[in-house]
Amino acid sequence: MDDCIFCKIVNKEIPAQVVYEDDEILAFKDIKPLAPVHVLVIPKKHIPDLTAITGEDTGLIGRLHLVATRLAEELGVADSGFRFVNNCKGDGGQVVFHLHFHLLGGRQLRGLG
Amino acid sequence: MDDCIFCKIVNKEIPAQVVYEDDEILAFKDIKPLAPVHVLVIPKKHIPDLTAITGEDTGLIGRLHLVATRLAEELGVADSGFRFVNNCKGDGGQVVFHLHFHLLGGRQLRGLG
Repeated sequence: MDDCIFCKIVNKEIPAQVVYEDDEILAFKDIKPLAPVHVLVIPKKHIPDLTAITGEDTGLIGRLHLVATRLAEELGVADSGFRFVNNCKGDGGQVVFHLHFHLLGGRQLRGLG
Repeated sequence: MDDCIFCKIVNKEIPAQVVYEDDEILAFKDIKPLAPVHVLVIPKKHIPDLTAITGEDTGLIGRLHLVATRLAEELGVADSGFRFVNNCKGDGGQVVFHLHFHLLGGRQLRGLG
């Protein structure tokens, strides 16, 4: 996806503060953090949004959550708690159309939007 | 887990407005909806919070997301969009300590908490 900013980050064409990387998953700091800890966890492959996942992606999505819990530990919010959020399409507030989950912590999260 | 309200819902000891059920996953309407669509999607097995998942749960967590996207379709928010949220422990605002994901839609979701 030539015009996808997150694909460019995956391909190292755009810099990012990467906090985790494996063959399938990348995590990096949000450039406009809304909490002391605000990391985006994404599949490397281009999936536009959550509605586009298929049965073939369930292992990937599950491992992505396992990565999130390990990151929460490393970033010091596994005990204090955190929020893990996927915004899907317009009403969800999705801005970048490459599937990503927000890991937010380090302060009391409020409401649900 | 004798004292877990969501285990009681799974075991039909407490009523709920169930919108999806299979061998491993249950989804039901939140009793205090924060949006026109507000469904909780949970694993039937008792996992207290997201930090308690293990490598054995990745398939389950992935399938739970696939169920969420199918529910979004059935509930009419797959195109308009939705938010899928896990609140983990204190700072996340977790209230019931049986892993659950909030599916919120039917209006513009704001902020991230």
